[in-house]
Amino acid sequence: MTGNLRSAIPTLTSLADIGDDSLQHLLARADALDQLLSSNGALPASLSGITVANLFFEPSTRTRASFELAATRLGAHVINLDMARASTVKGESLLDTIRTLHAMNVQLFVVRHAGERILQPVADALVGQYLAIVSAGEGRADHPTQGLIDALTLLQRFGNLEGRTIAIVGDIVHSRVARSAIHVMGRLGANLRIAGPAGFMPPAEDLQEAVRCASLDEAMDGADVVMALRIQRERMTEEGTLDEMGYFTEWGLTENRLAHIAPDALVMHPGPFNREVEIASEVADGPRSLILRQVALGIPVRMAVLEWLAQELDA
Amino acid sequence: MTGNLRSAIPTLTSLADIGDDSLQHLLARADALDQLLSSNGALPASLSGITVANLFFEPSTRTRASFELAATRLGAHVINLDMARASTVKGESLLDTIRTLHAMNVQLFVVRHAGERILQPVADALVGQYLAIVSAGEGRADHPTQGLIDALTLLQRFGNLEGRTIAIVGDIVHSRVARSAIHVMGRLGANLRIAGPAGFMPPAEDLQEAVRCASLDEAMDGADVVMALRIQRERMTEEGTLDEMGYFTEWGLTENRLAHIAPDALVMHPGPFNREVEIASEVADGPRSLILRQVALGIPVRMAVLEWLAQELDA
Amino acid sequence: MTGNLRSAIPTLTSLADIGDDSLQHLLARADALDQLLSSNGALPASLSGITVANLFFEPSTRTRASFELAATRLGAHVINLDMARASTVKGESLLDTIRTLHAMNVQLFVVRHAGERILQPVADALVGQYLAIVSAGEGRADHPTQGLIDALTLLQRFGNLEGRTIAIVGDIVHSRVARSAIHVMGRLGANLRIAGPAGFMPPAEDLQEAVRCASLDEAMDGADVVMALRIQRERMTEEGTLDEMGYFTEWGLTENRLAHIAPDALVMHPGPFNREVEIASEVADGPRSLILRQVALGIPVRMAVLEWLAQELDA
Repeated sequence: MTGNLRSAIPTLTSLADIGDDSLQHLLARADALDQLLSSNGALPASLSGITVANLFFEPSTRTRASFELAATRLGAHVINLDMARASTVKGESLLDTIRTLHAMNVQLFVVRHAGERILQPVADALVGQYLAIVSAGEGRADHPTQGLIDALTLLQRFGNLEGRTIAIVGDIVHSRVARSAIHVMGRLGANLRIAGPAGFMPPAEDLQEAVRCASLDEAMDGADVVMALRIQRERMTEEGTLDEMGYFTEWGLTENRLAHIAPDALVMHPGPFNREVEIASEVADGPRSLILRQVALGIPVRMAVLEWLAQELDA
Repeated sequence: MTGNLRSAIPTLTSLADIGDDSLQHLLARADALDQLLSSNGALPASLSGITVANLFFEPSTRTRASFELAATRLGAHVINLDMARASTVKGESLLDTIRTLHAMNVQLFVVRHAGERILQPVADALVGQYLAIVSAGEGRADHPTQGLIDALTLLQRFGNLEGRTIAIVGDIVHSRVARSAIHVMGRLGANLRIAGPAGFMPPAEDLQEAVRCASLDEAMDGADVVMALRIQRERMTEEGTLDEMGYFTEWGLTENRLAHIAPDALVMHPGPFNREVEIASEVADGPRSLILRQVALGIPVRMAVLEWLAQELDA
Repeated sequence: MTGNLRSAIPTLTSLADIGDDSLQHLLARADALDQLLSSNGALPASLSGITVANLFFEPSTRTRASFELAATRLGAHVINLDMARASTVKGESLLDTIRTLHAMNVQLFVVRHAGERILQPVADALVGQYLAIVSAGEGRADHPTQGLIDALTLLQRFGNLEGRTIAIVGDIVHSRVARSAIHVMGRLGANLRIAGPAGFMPPAEDLQEAVRCASLDEAMDGADVVMALRIQRERMTEEGTLDEMGYFTEWGLTENRLAHIAPDALVMHPGPFNREVEIASEVADGPRSLILRQVALGIPVRMAVLEWLAQELDA
């Protein structure tokens, strides 16, 4: 444990906070690691001797597993802490939990939290410590590794995103995935569109980099990619019951609809998806679906992020 | 990851689905691994480079630990996913969960589920994928590794099961353990008897390979082995309260009863057992008890099963 | 697995049960391991080939993580069993759970439990087995590794505790930490004082080795160390609501109070602490705080304890 005198600890809490060089490095490195994984090449032990803590304050299966596998494959030791249960009992703050685990020599922290933009202030309070923090999804605000995954998925298909049209449809306002995807894809030159039911659209001053469309058809028309978002059932209990069938009729991605409006469009979804609610099974499981490719790229993207943070620690 | 063109992925969801060669191989291999473990012999790294996911949709301590230890001892990396909690929140199906984790390069899936015969249809939907599935207990239907454990426990005692009489008593109808044990022991030549309170006996058309007895004494009379089953308290909430003392008087295994009716009988129980409900402590902890031997053999049996599935993957 | 014929299995359930030689050995070994950890020295693989089970019947983040990291760093394989959930469903006793896991070849058991002095009877029932048990906190009775941590924290500061005055303040009666600290520090020559609200003080016949003080000021006056205890909110639901602000005014450690009454005193807390309830942030995060040092020493102390138990197993 060597202290460091920089003005901030290494973090990835929002893609908006990292420069173009870092963004390009992460995407290129994730792509290289993906090739290593696909060819069963020898992986670097970049995280050997490092302990990673998964601090998940919201339940998660896939993202927690993805970070655990990514860290393990680079030689880290991973401990899982189910904060959804623990925190309800003892009420220790996130900052104190990180300080405590860091005193046990944990260096990398993967945090999922329902709060809005609380990770960066926590990181700022830890200046001078030999530790790094990566967001695994934060409130409605940001999900930076998912944004990198979505960008890399399309870069591997298209080479670059200049001039590509990407429609993001559904529950925009609750979606940290939408926010991160719109930011990173816009930055890589794509044209973004958003559409969804009135209650699911963000306020007018929000997400101005995306064009608002009045219907699914308008959003999809000529799009290269349509990304459906998960209806966050568990966040909607206080907002009344969702009419799932009505939602599917108006906003669900079906093969028929795609064939008419955007016949060559690829389809994405951050998962887990609700079949026959926001997406038809024939689409999710069909040839235009990139959904499992997104999942697969979760591993090399998170490997690249964790490795980069570890390198920043020693920079 | 190489695809495979066979008509099915490797599974062990029911012992009824595997041929005699495979059954004999698994029992012999488990026996050999048991000897290696007992003598602290070097274990093969049969699962090196393989990731195993424990997907438990029902709570479990011992079976989950047993699979985790078995996989780890053969060099696998194991991730534990507590689906009992996760699934209640996000509602992703088992099939989609497996597809998702497989996209992260998980190859072996250990699944415990309350559903009835849903694992094999899920496996059938995954044809062509480089993955294998083993049941860790499925509804009331099947618990194949427990069946192998119970068979091996007796084979190590008796050499073979030809003509041996095995009485299974208690809550038959809720018990996947009874179903798997009756199948495999019958197949190995044993005579099976079942007995239990009326509400715990299966319908007449079910489990016809076992002789139905009217009382515990009738079932035990001359038996080589008596297997008590756990009263599934947690499954009985809707069926009224169990009179535990009355149950023990009529159906509990006591040393006195055994001494009179089946003085040389060995006693089994799949665990966890309810002391002084289905079995007296003096029996469970006494010299005729094979209970801890059953637990111990869980490790080599599950090692053999996981290794066999991995070999089938590459066959 | 070799049986052993001793009259007891190796345990650490209470520091009162171990001799001075063992106590000195554990403190010296933990200090040596702490130096190895700080200097990134090569750690001994003292637990190679050993499986450690974390059996936590009460929720815990930090203690469970501390034991897991300690065991892993000495080469053990660790399995985590969340008994807080499992036990509510199946009702298997602690003794049977340990017997079952031991049949799977688990040798070291780390147990946290709400019961009072139940671990040693459980250990006594396991005589002759090749296994060892360490308490990770037991009811209100004992928390032996925390006692060692607190003692070592002060020994590293003061060299020895002869004649040092240590005030322990707050919720004494519910605190297993207070009990273990008073025992071990008294044994090392320190003078102990206790103070707290009437409802938080133990009965007169209890903890007689500590001097009872009527107020925080009286307890702190001239003390070398003040240890605040966590208000156990989760244990107090049946005892009415705590007036947190009133508590802080009368019993909270503030810099102003310390500066007046015990200007050179060091401050300890077993964590997790409630900021602005039992301790002011300015104190917890300030230069007199040993809190994170206590956390850090948790790793080498638990390494020393696990290693010692493993050596006792083979003695």
